[in-house]
Amino acid sequence: MSDSIFTIEHKDGAARAGTLRTAHGVIPTPIFMPVGTVGSVKAIAPDDLAAVGAPIILGNTYHLYLRPGDELVARRGGLHEFASWPGSILTDSGGFQVFSLSSLRKIREEGVEFRSHLDGSKHLFTPEKVLQIQRNLNSDIMMVLDECVPYGADYDYTAKSLALTTRWAQRARAAYPAGTAHNLLFGITQGGFHKDLRKRSIEELCGMDFDGFAIGGLSVGEPKAQMYDLLYHTAPLLPGHKPRYLMGVGTPLDIANGINAGVDMFDCVLPTRNARNGTLYTSVGKINIRRKQFAEDDGPLDPNCNCYTCRTFSRAYLRHLYASQELLSFRLNSLHNLTYFLDLARNARQAIIEGRYTDFLAKITALYPDEAAKAAEGA
Amino acid sequence: MSDSIFTIEHKDGAARAGTLRTAHGVIPTPIFMPVGTVGSVKAIAPDDLAAVGAPIILGNTYHLYLRPGDELVARRGGLHEFASWPGSILTDSGGFQVFSLSSLRKIREEGVEFRSHLDGSKHLFTPEKVLQIQRNLNSDIMMVLDECVPYGADYDYTAKSLALTTRWAQRARAAYPAGTAHNLLFGITQGGFHKDLRKRSIEELCGMDFDGFAIGGLSVGEPKAQMYDLLYHTAPLLPGHKPRYLMGVGTPLDIANGINAGVDMFDCVLPTRNARNGTLYTSVGKINIRRKQFAEDDGPLDPNCNCYTCRTFSRAYLRHLYASQELLSFRLNSLHNLTYFLDLARNARQAIIEGRYTDFLAKITALYPDEAAKAAEGA
Repeated sequence: MSDSIFTIEHKDGAARAGTLRTAHGVIPTPIFMPVGTVGSVKAIAPDDLAAVGAPIILGNTYHLYLRPGDELVARRGGLHEFASWPGSILTDSGGFQVFSLSSLRKIREEGVEFRSHLDGSKHLFTPEKVLQIQRNLNSDIMMVLDECVPYGADYDYTAKSLALTTRWAQRARAAYPAGTAHNLLFGITQGGFHKDLRKRSIEELCGMDFDGFAIGGLSVGEPKAQMYDLLYHTAPLLPGHKPRYLMGVGTPLDIANGINAGVDMFDCVLPTRNARNGTLYTSVGKINIRRKQFAEDDGPLDPNCNCYTCRTFSRAYLRHLYASQELLSFRLNSLHNLTYFLDLARNARQAIIEGRYTDFLAKITALYPDEAAKAAEGA
Repeated sequence: MSDSIFTIEHKDGAARAGTLRTAHGVIPTPIFMPVGTVGSVKAIAPDDLAAVGAPIILGNTYHLYLRPGDELVARRGGLHEFASWPGSILTDSGGFQVFSLSSLRKIREEGVEFRSHLDGSKHLFTPEKVLQIQRNLNSDIMMVLDECVPYGADYDYTAKSLALTTRWAQRARAAYPAGTAHNLLFGITQGGFHKDLRKRSIEELCGMDFDGFAIGGLSVGEPKAQMYDLLYHTAPLLPGHKPRYLMGVGTPLDIANGINAGVDMFDCVLPTRNARNGTLYTSVGKINIRRKQFAEDDGPLDPNCNCYTCRTFSRAYLRHLYASQELLSFRLNSLHNLTYFLDLARNARQAIIEGRYTDFLAKITALYPDEAAKAAEGA
């Protein structure tokens, strides 16, 4: 089953243009997945997602488990039915939110115990439990439970953690053998910022028959140069014929480099969170719409973008909406930023197909010179 | 000019089905006008307004004058261009917000001085000034400056205030003689809760050649029965051949009664504000979507509504969005409530045309028994 879900149609260097098939559709890769934390991409409706051309969104297992509850969602027929979203859904394992949002978390062999950030109630996530939750949500792509090692963790801690992540992955695969159902299951490689541990994690995980493999534990506070170093070290070690997913990443430059390193899938709250902060991505660089310079700017936000926001409104109006903190501002800005990130993936794919990915990466790099300079530090 | 802008096609008792023509379109009356405070109906985009079938929205002169500034809007080509709204726009006079939002207001013969609620800066609104602002906004229907007398004002204060409102109306008409431009100008009748003063205000105002007449100063905190008493007293005194506008009103029952009394136009923040509070209007009565009873309710919000929200989502999902305070909740709820209010106006019009308005009013009354009981108190 796992082999037929993903085909690579073109390669340009390490970059891959492929197609991923799930129970809910066909996903051209590379792809960016908008984050729908609690079952809605913030400020964005399913018809908006169709308009920006998103074939797959992400849901957060931790959030949906706590509210409205995965069993309630299951009784509604799953997350697609509940949220009226006909496309594909990937759910994370819940692990990352346990480590970043909840309090009093205790990691044991059995799993991770934590208190809800909503009401302080106590819960236990095990490898088996988070699969049961994701099966209740009926996500198209489920992720195994892992420990996301914090930046700065020493070698010994990281090595022990990665061994636990491997044992959790084995339990997950045992609880949900390949071919059990239509829900795909991806493994998550860890290893912190130690290259040999990254390699070890991949060797241990990739012997298991997962449908795809993620790189976890990057973009957790490390310097950009270090992230890129690890990314370019790790991605080529992953099995070539399966989809590769760089979790929680990132900026347009990060994504362009991820694709360059051979990654196929990305997710990040950046386009929607930044939209709500007035930071907008355009074909001529990043702008903050709150700036006074836009007060009388009658041009579109991005003349090269075809989203509803750019087709319809001026920068002057978008600035006014943002300055007034109108709810419409959050939707229009999110619509645009998501279009930018989806366009980035679409354009990257086309560049790979046409064998000009190096040029494409150079153009993205030129758009974000400050970030590119940081990425190049120590290189 | 003013006579040709409005035609009455059917009457059923005092209720009227008509057509109002502005520089930006044809408006079937009775009509409900969504409130677009600072140039956007909260959480709602122009394509949403088209979807709910709103031919006209309201803009607040006070808000737009302060931010982004009417002159900035004029340099953008007016409010229609600025907000990308192709339909009609009515702007209020700014008076009501001066009295309800600003501090340190001083009413003088010349006009009203006030401090901005945004930054405390000092401003003066005169009858001439608020017309200049509305001309800068290029609204299709402009309102004259008036003093909205607070509930409980005594006879002498109300009489003096109404005389000032009349003098301000004279100055407005003199500054902007009939036929000057395509922007229509409506007068606002006042008179508080004294029937003879209501009559006097109408006699004084309606001698002036305004394009339409508003009833101001209702729904300002008075008991519902008293509002209805004044409404049914006042509406029939207004000129029969011109559009009648009941400002800032109201609930579905208020609107149905306003139509019954012969009013043609209504505006209120109720559908959008209540939407953001989870209070939703349906064909079987008002509900609060936050209630636990909807947690597993897979039915549509209103089976008799054809809006995007009702066509697409379950009550269970809408409850979850509201409970999570997701931004999408505000848009979906607002879309529905606006559809309800526009449908109310459309259905009322059809009932008038078919000569069954009494039945229609009885049905609306039955939907809101508590409110209807209050309206009947002392009747």
